[in-house]
Amino acid sequence: MLAFARSQRLLARSVRLQTSAAALSRRAASTTVEYNWEDPLNLESNLTEDEVAIRDMARSYCQDNLMPRVLKGWRTEEFDFGILPEMGKLGLLGPTIQGYGCAGASNVAYGLIAREIERVDSGYRSTASVQSSLVMHPINEFGTEAQKEKYLPRLAKGELIGAFGLTEPNHGSDPAGMETTAEEVDGGFVLNGSKTWITNAPVADVFIVWARCKWDRRVRGFILEKGMKGLTAPAIKNKVALRVSATGSIFMDNVSVPHDALLPGSKGLGSAFSCLNSARYGISWGVMGALEDCLSRTREYALERNQFKRPLASFQLVQKKFADAHTEVALGLHSSLQVGRLKDEGKVAPEMISLVKRNNCGKALAHARILIDILGGNASSDEYHVGRHVANLQVTNTYEGTNDIHALILGKAITGLPAFA
Amino acid sequence: MLAFARSQRLLARSVRLQTSAAALSRRAASTTVEYNWEDPLNLESNLTEDEVAIRDMARSYCQDNLMPRVLKGWRTEEFDFGILPEMGKLGLLGPTIQGYGCAGASNVAYGLIAREIERVDSGYRSTASVQSSLVMHPINEFGTEAQKEKYLPRLAKGELIGAFGLTEPNHGSDPAGMETTAEEVDGGFVLNGSKTWITNAPVADVFIVWARCKWDRRVRGFILEKGMKGLTAPAIKNKVALRVSATGSIFMDNVSVPHDALLPGSKGLGSAFSCLNSARYGISWGVMGALEDCLSRTREYALERNQFKRPLASFQLVQKKFADAHTEVALGLHSSLQVGRLKDEGKVAPEMISLVKRNNCGKALAHARILIDILGGNASSDEYHVGRHVANLQVTNTYEGTNDIHALILGKAITGLPAFA
Amino acid sequence: MLAFARSQRLLARSVRLQTSAAALSRRAASTTVEYNWEDPLNLESNLTEDEVAIRDMARSYCQDNLMPRVLKGWRTEEFDFGILPEMGKLGLLGPTIQGYGCAGASNVAYGLIAREIERVDSGYRSTASVQSSLVMHPINEFGTEAQKEKYLPRLAKGELIGAFGLTEPNHGSDPAGMETTAEEVDGGFVLNGSKTWITNAPVADVFIVWARCKWDRRVRGFILEKGMKGLTAPAIKNKVALRVSATGSIFMDNVSVPHDALLPGSKGLGSAFSCLNSARYGISWGVMGALEDCLSRTREYALERNQFKRPLASFQLVQKKFADAHTEVALGLHSSLQVGRLKDEGKVAPEMISLVKRNNCGKALAHARILIDILGGNASSDEYHVGRHVANLQVTNTYEGTNDIHALILGKAITGLPAFA
Amino acid sequence: MLAFARSQRLLARSVRLQTSAAALSRRAASTTVEYNWEDPLNLESNLTEDEVAIRDMARSYCQDNLMPRVLKGWRTEEFDFGILPEMGKLGLLGPTIQGYGCAGASNVAYGLIAREIERVDSGYRSTASVQSSLVMHPINEFGTEAQKEKYLPRLAKGELIGAFGLTEPNHGSDPAGMETTAEEVDGGFVLNGSKTWITNAPVADVFIVWARCKWDRRVRGFILEKGMKGLTAPAIKNKVALRVSATGSIFMDNVSVPHDALLPGSKGLGSAFSCLNSARYGISWGVMGALEDCLSRTREYALERNQFKRPLASFQLVQKKFADAHTEVALGLHSSLQVGRLKDEGKVAPEMISLVKRNNCGKALAHARILIDILGGNASSDEYHVGRHVANLQVTNTYEGTNDIHALILGKAITGLPAFA
Repeated sequence: MLAFARSQRLLARSVRLQTSAAALSRRAASTTVEYNWEDPLNLESNLTEDEVAIRDMARSYCQDNLMPRVLKGWRTEEFDFGILPEMGKLGLLGPTIQGYGCAGASNVAYGLIAREIERVDSGYRSTASVQSSLVMHPINEFGTEAQKEKYLPRLAKGELIGAFGLTEPNHGSDPAGMETTAEEVDGGFVLNGSKTWITNAPVADVFIVWARCKWDRRVRGFILEKGMKGLTAPAIKNKVALRVSATGSIFMDNVSVPHDALLPGSKGLGSAFSCLNSARYGISWGVMGALEDCLSRTREYALERNQFKRPLASFQLVQKKFADAHTEVALGLHSSLQVGRLKDEGKVAPEMISLVKRNNCGKALAHARILIDILGGNASSDEYHVGRHVANLQVTNTYEGTNDIHALILGKAITGLPAFA
Repeated sequence: MLAFARSQRLLARSVRLQTSAAALSRRAASTTVEYNWEDPLNLESNLTEDEVAIRDMARSYCQDNLMPRVLKGWRTEEFDFGILPEMGKLGLLGPTIQGYGCAGASNVAYGLIAREIERVDSGYRSTASVQSSLVMHPINEFGTEAQKEKYLPRLAKGELIGAFGLTEPNHGSDPAGMETTAEEVDGGFVLNGSKTWITNAPVADVFIVWARCKWDRRVRGFILEKGMKGLTAPAIKNKVALRVSATGSIFMDNVSVPHDALLPGSKGLGSAFSCLNSARYGISWGVMGALEDCLSRTREYALERNQFKRPLASFQLVQKKFADAHTEVALGLHSSLQVGRLKDEGKVAPEMISLVKRNNCGKALAHARILIDILGGNASSDEYHVGRHVANLQVTNTYEGTNDIHALILGKAITGLPAFA
Repeated sequence: MLAFARSQRLLARSVRLQTSAAALSRRAASTTVEYNWEDPLNLESNLTEDEVAIRDMARSYCQDNLMPRVLKGWRTEEFDFGILPEMGKLGLLGPTIQGYGCAGASNVAYGLIAREIERVDSGYRSTASVQSSLVMHPINEFGTEAQKEKYLPRLAKGELIGAFGLTEPNHGSDPAGMETTAEEVDGGFVLNGSKTWITNAPVADVFIVWARCKWDRRVRGFILEKGMKGLTAPAIKNKVALRVSATGSIFMDNVSVPHDALLPGSKGLGSAFSCLNSARYGISWGVMGALEDCLSRTREYALERNQFKRPLASFQLVQKKFADAHTEVALGLHSSLQVGRLKDEGKVAPEMISLVKRNNCGKALAHARILIDILGGNASSDEYHVGRHVANLQVTNTYEGTNDIHALILGKAITGLPAFA
Repeated sequence: MLAFARSQRLLARSVRLQTSAAALSRRAASTTVEYNWEDPLNLESNLTEDEVAIRDMARSYCQDNLMPRVLKGWRTEEFDFGILPEMGKLGLLGPTIQGYGCAGASNVAYGLIAREIERVDSGYRSTASVQSSLVMHPINEFGTEAQKEKYLPRLAKGELIGAFGLTEPNHGSDPAGMETTAEEVDGGFVLNGSKTWITNAPVADVFIVWARCKWDRRVRGFILEKGMKGLTAPAIKNKVALRVSATGSIFMDNVSVPHDALLPGSKGLGSAFSCLNSARYGISWGVMGALEDCLSRTREYALERNQFKRPLASFQLVQKKFADAHTEVALGLHSSLQVGRLKDEGKVAPEMISLVKRNNCGKALAHARILIDILGGNASSDEYHVGRHVANLQVTNTYEGTNDIHALILGKAITGLPAFA
């Protein structure tokens, strides 16, 4: 039971709180506003003017210029070389980097861009994510001034395409098992090994490749360039998803690189993981865009299509699907926003990114899969677009850390005990 | 394809953004902090000092003073009359109200209080929610100055207990079908009708009862007092959940009340809904507290309990349960925070509250149900507490708008089409 | 409490039961056998020798002859005209029909065939289902002897390809809204209208088309033939699923047919539904085959692939996925077996078929989607086949009655109340 | 492509099949019957007359005699000593045992009895399961003729109550870690150790206790009797589930037993597991009964209760809940039926029982939890019964092998790899 002294002390504090709170001028609790189903919890109220402007620019570009190309890209699996330069012109590549022709925008702005691109297709967003988070980011973080000046401006403009080689054929979820090696030789290093499921590989000019350095067994990043002897990057074709992005392997057979190919600031797998974290953070925004597109398209379909003489959208079973998806969009976006703000302030923990990457990818996939059923038979047609998102989102839920691996990362953070193996 | 003029314009804007963004001093993107599993996305960074202080005070009180009483209350189903006065002393009742002895705290502070109380038991939180959101709130919003002065200070102190009579035996999800009536007579009004599943009813001194006014068919609120002739409020016993709170019916058989029993500002069902929205908002915070308690208790159990010579907490299937629940706690809390901030600013839409009430109740219930399995056979014992939360959360997911009804409210907001019937 | 007389009566009955049961010679309850994960509840013990032989023949054919062609078919979306004749040679088309060159096998045998074909691809099974259940079945059930003799033997051999036109662009789930009409004229009938999402349409020689007869507003079936004036059946291309089967529309612009094109036994939509029920029953078996293939492929992958130096198959999170899918395969197959036996005995109710169609399609889809994640990045490659099944199964869950529509059919059967609109 | 010779051979076989199949006289495929929502796939058609009679007798007894007592038992947590004798009179205890006053019925009959008892309450079924499967079964399987004659008839009559002591405080899912010991001494054995969460323990006359024998480290079963020195079995009270059954611990402090207390046929943990398998098989039927009761009660409620001027049962979101639960009842029962038939024939594998125990418990729990929401606020009242089932089913899903442990048993059977630790 509450002792008297304690209650008095707490009461005193309570009164102080009351006083300070009373100073706030607050509108009546019963005041309400109109609900905007496209921004259920008013994300916009938390964005800066600049962020809103960047988002609107990105949305216009994506809807006006990417959307009309997506079906052809999906059907033919051909990479469209025009896109990165266009994005570059708009400042959409490496947007958080300061200088070197980059926009120096906030991490939230970066997320908003990813969301707009993925509203069209996860493959386009993958292409851009790799460029920004996995190529420009490590050069900016771990590179020399010369490396930055050499590569960043051209990558920012989309004149160069980058790829990131970490995953190996036998090591998906455990990069610590890496088999690619770098050996120091006269005049530089020799790299051997292979990487697979590498976005942009077949079209890349620049490769950030991670290798275990024979002299100290640590993993470091190296900048490789297309055309180096012994370096090949064949395409993987006949993909069932992400067909508008190019995917391939990287094979390195005694590839010789000069000393200045080493990213000197990269120290161990942690450096590679920092890139992945940047990419995963962007993915967490991106997939919400894809889910929003599924919601918007199925909603429009359900409003227009009648069954039993009523619009599909008026059926309880359809509305529940919308309500569920809609809710997860709101939750996912606000969580990523919070992580973005913390990232800007240098207060992010990698597990936070695991949380939003895993949650948003998992929820986007789950709800896109539910929404697609609303289309009935038309779901089969790629012209209704949702099937494409569904196929893409399965991959986003798996790449850059599978859903299960991120669960175990969180599980370790919660319990202190590793359960990976 | 992007037209030249348009690209130039966008580019110009992009450069501007770059400049303004460059002005920010931002820490390196790779800086990271330690992860705190008890506050995964750093909710605390968004709270004011006052809010943190109120939360800590509430937590101390609840853990020190409520927790030791909960098992007895649950087992005996006896209402503990000591609790509301204790909460009153600490300023926990009607905390957002300005004046009348109330704390005048923010809506976020109100949510934090609900979370701390429900961390112990949803029944205690129900008792407090009714007092604050369903009794004090309507008096404050719709009452005369005299009504406020008469009731609010004593309700704030917990000297009076309040109940809220809206739901009727035949009208749960559709209060528009209300059958209780108020008729104007010489000297006041006569009320007839019955209400059921009313929290606090059997112990209440003051009743906010909603009735359809015969003279214009509108629904209005009335303040009734225990002891009025024709007013009875028998208890409903043998509940399978919320056993520490008192629940009952309200029967009104020609109850005469004076004119000043009418809440003059209450105009139609919308006024009643404004109370429910305030309560639902608090519930959205509260249930997260219950889920957090389930997580914390099962985590501790899993760390201590060995099977196959390893702690349960080291099993993948157990860690996944933690990761999932943990994620939903983070998402739910940050969403409620956003709604709370908007509420303070008068920018809330009722559908936002439907969204967080429904989501948080649904997720709390779903994950509490998953977590309880970790306890194995011990789940059967009320001393492990999780079974109690599981039973309670089933009710919170249903009361104040079932999960399905809120889905249809959101569905209507998304599609513009009602699907309630 | 149990009354004495009653207990004596029951006891007497119990003793009788005991006596009769004691007559059974039963092996000791503790005797056990080895578990066969590929037939968890020993389905085989319930099959006749003939059924086992048909299944084995179908399996050999499908694995040896269809499997090698599926990737090409999927990638090119080209219909393979060799397949139906091959199936015809083996007696796999219209297998339950007696006479007319058909095998006269049991409905369970028909189901086993569907399962083997769909183990390769749902598109191949769709082609065969249409031929057997939607074209041969109505001719056999509702046709004249002359119609049977004219069409059935050639359809059974796969010399003719059939299509079934019921679904219309504006009427998916509610065929009662049918707009296609038949008008009686001198010498026969004139048909007008359009049908969409018709499997086999672009390659069909024979069309069973359903139309509302102007003279009495009833729906009846007509046999149309390729080449009739005013009849076109253009292909729908760029499908995201069922790409090895041909899909198209049927447009009828004043198509004149002779009197003997009418299926005289077809009387109302019920006749069309009888075809659908036959097809749905086959689908319920088929999709289990697709899920079994996903299970078998991901199991093999997980056994071969190591992560963290252990086979993926040894991880709890992976094993749970297997256990869940495996369980649903067992449940689904035994349910379809029961329905098949009842069908053979003329004891089937349409709702039973709704139950197994809905359940098996829903579960196959849900678990294929879970299993695919085991493949990690390789899920993207069509060479791993599971992505193809996942895409196909989304359609099987929707066609021939969406999952939701079958839920409402069951809901009506349970409650007596229609909730379709 | 299909080689000619091969196709000829298959064709020949096909013709043979056709011939044999043609011999069957089968009713037209389009013949249908009325759907019976209470027996969706016509389970009854697979039962013998005796099985139907036993089921009907059990149902009458349970509805007439148990149902009226269940609320009192649940509220007071008091064991009703009248019940086992009543069940005994009707032949419901140890019903599969031949002789010794037992009914000698089939395993399917045993399952049907469990289902009828659990339709009332899982606690009553637990009491009976322990008596039949965990006490009578091991005496019958592993006991001497003298032991059988001494105990079985009185257990069958319900004159003696039995308990089964396997689970220990520190070993729930891994009984191999058993710490209870038996030491051979002059004249018999001395047992030491403790068991927990033992159904019937506080009311038992006879205890089958499993102990590790010091002389060879093997686990064997012993028959202990109430009143032995050093043997205590205190009750565990304040359970949140299974409140009508008695639960307790067993403490053995140097309990001396004669040589003939040993069950000589019990050889290792496998013998204990054989008992568990028998019990689990019964549970797989029982929980379906509980789910059927939830379905039946919520259906009736939904038909009677109107909201928005329509019966709840006419809402899509309600019907979907019914359809889903209803489907799982059908699937679960037919699977258990198949296992029961295999059990009678001595063809059962323990993993089959893991499959049906896990599936049926998991599904019963999941769907009972969904159905309860239909009751709205009335779910809180124990008079609506569903909350009681929901609480009970959580325990049935965990006891006798948690859902996860059975998943890993199946996972091992599928992959060959153990993942328990």
